[in-house]
Amino acid sequence: MKKIVFDILNNDNGISYAIKAACSFKSKNKDYQIALVADKDIIEKELIKLKNKYKISIDDFIIVDSKNLVHIKNSPREVLKNSSSMLDAFNYLNENNFDGIVSSGDSGAFITLSSFKIKRLPNVSRPAFMPILPTLQNNKYALLLDAGANIETSYEYLNNWAVVASQYYELIFNKQKPSIGLLNVGTEEYKGSANLKEAYKLLKNNKEVNFTGFIEPKDGIAGNVDIILAEGQSGNIFLKTLEHSFLGFGKLLKNIINTNLLTKIGGLLLKRQLKKLKAKFDYRNVGGAYIVGLEKLVVKAHGGSDEIAFENALNQVKFLLEKKDFVKKLTNKLEVLNNEA
Amino acid sequence: MKKIVFDILNNDNGISYAIKAACSFKSKNKDYQIALVADKDIIEKELIKLKNKYKISIDDFIIVDSKNLVHIKNSPREVLKNSSSMLDAFNYLNENNFDGIVSSGDSGAFITLSSFKIKRLPNVSRPAFMPILPTLQNNKYALLLDAGANIETSYEYLNNWAVVASQYYELIFNKQKPSIGLLNVGTEEYKGSANLKEAYKLLKNNKEVNFTGFIEPKDGIAGNVDIILAEGQSGNIFLKTLEHSFLGFGKLLKNIINTNLLTKIGGLLLKRQLKKLKAKFDYRNVGGAYIVGLEKLVVKAHGGSDEIAFENALNQVKFLLEKKDFVKKLTNKLEVLNNEA
Repeated sequence: MKKIVFDILNNDNGISYAIKAACSFKSKNKDYQIALVADKDIIEKELIKLKNKYKISIDDFIIVDSKNLVHIKNSPREVLKNSSSMLDAFNYLNENNFDGIVSSGDSGAFITLSSFKIKRLPNVSRPAFMPILPTLQNNKYALLLDAGANIETSYEYLNNWAVVASQYYELIFNKQKPSIGLLNVGTEEYKGSANLKEAYKLLKNNKEVNFTGFIEPKDGIAGNVDIILAEGQSGNIFLKTLEHSFLGFGKLLKNIINTNLLTKIGGLLLKRQLKKLKAKFDYRNVGGAYIVGLEKLVVKAHGGSDEIAFENALNQVKFLLEKKDFVKKLTNKLEVLNNEA
Repeated sequence: MKKIVFDILNNDNGISYAIKAACSFKSKNKDYQIALVADKDIIEKELIKLKNKYKISIDDFIIVDSKNLVHIKNSPREVLKNSSSMLDAFNYLNENNFDGIVSSGDSGAFITLSSFKIKRLPNVSRPAFMPILPTLQNNKYALLLDAGANIETSYEYLNNWAVVASQYYELIFNKQKPSIGLLNVGTEEYKGSANLKEAYKLLKNNKEVNFTGFIEPKDGIAGNVDIILAEGQSGNIFLKTLEHSFLGFGKLLKNIINTNLLTKIGGLLLKRQLKKLKAKFDYRNVGGAYIVGLEKLVVKAHGGSDEIAFENALNQVKFLLEKKDFVKKLTNKLEVLNNEA
């Protein structure tokens, strides 16, 4: 039996969507144990409302009673001491030997707790934040890491993450030896910081990965590589700029369509296709971001997740849990890396 | 008489557009001396073709004969020794005490030559690359710096650039005390690298500027600040991601419009408005990027510039040259900064 902890208190839209997602997931996956972490009374009330619709009972779930929202005031490390449902969820994960954890709470808090509460894979110094990105190519997605779990990112981290991300990509997208580009200010070898140049050298000699060299943002956007490897700050800025450029363009387009009667008709004729485009670049459809480099499966769902987004996040954990010996294989690869170095 | 050096050899589209732009500019600005740097024979042939159209004569220009394209193989510093029209242009600028320089050649080469060949303003350690960005707000533009002139960017550079950029913004957009945001992975004070936190402290205490705190990419895109201050690598990734997201979205929209007859009609109805949108986010209309922190006016035109883009670049130099005592005032402000520190 596989076991997932689901911190459901930290959602922008209240906990109802998360509970619906849990019910829907559980009704399709009877062999999964799901621990819901939030206010017990509220969870029970919601489950009673939903039990007929999803054909589940309250006893199908473990309920971990927890009432405080995670909150950072001055330093991310506060989350290690201050009571919160997210902290309770990580403690439950460890104490009960669960396999994975999902939350839509504050990214900084989630990354900090992941780093301190979950054992790292061998030769991985720090976990990385790894979302799945849509690209301009049809049906082509890329993995981006690190998208902001780390501020100072050493070249060794980058080399280790390359191995981890390759393994994820192979399983998720069923493609052997996915290509990896290292995000830089230019593609020429002489460009970039000392740290990126060191990473380049390590990656060129890393036999576990298919490293293609430096890339610029346009290569990541176009889908020219499978994995966009980046220092934490650059990866974060890349991700947020991409996301908000597309949102911004969408808004501008909406304004244009509302200019006058003719443009409104124009908009109507394009509506179906525009919806498809929006769906592709809507991050809720792509799913949550993985926190990788750890011995457990960790998925950060979007703060604004709805029922579908949450169920996708649970399925992201399930998908890899059901790949036989996923963590063990990754461990072996990372150990080989160390022997080579 | 104001004097501008114009390196015209380094253009993706050949030198014809640059010469047309020079002629058009000269015909409107008789009091400007323009030195054209490229192959003398070609320049003369082009000028003979154009003299009637623009009512100019060959003698209206200084021609600096130079035949080699700038080229970097292993290190940007090569441009200081290897013969090129860009190097000749910088030498001409210095030896003849010209006021400004324009080129559309390789950015790395142009920045390197600007750094080594032009005296820096007091208390400015390194020049910065500063493009003008369109934002989502109507008619609102922002200045971004540094967009990639520097890889390692110390907090002191950021504080100095803030003063320089404020002065540019005040003059270009006629707004006193423009607001400045510092690009980071989050807006909270506790977020980001040690370097950005140090910059934050300096900027908060800098009386010459209106610093509003950390910003994320979305604030820059939305036009929430006038000046986006960034470390070189982050600024470069932000700029390139923004530019290529918009280009990418444009392509996707084109594909959508071409789906079938109805969507094509939809596209036709929106055509006029879409053109306006494209014009706003087309960097050629916004103009070249300034290299700032130097005692001369330096503008990098886009590699793919056409006649209009080149003339805009020349006008960008002219605009500031005609602001009385621009460099002197900036020098005074920067000297005050030093006294305060």
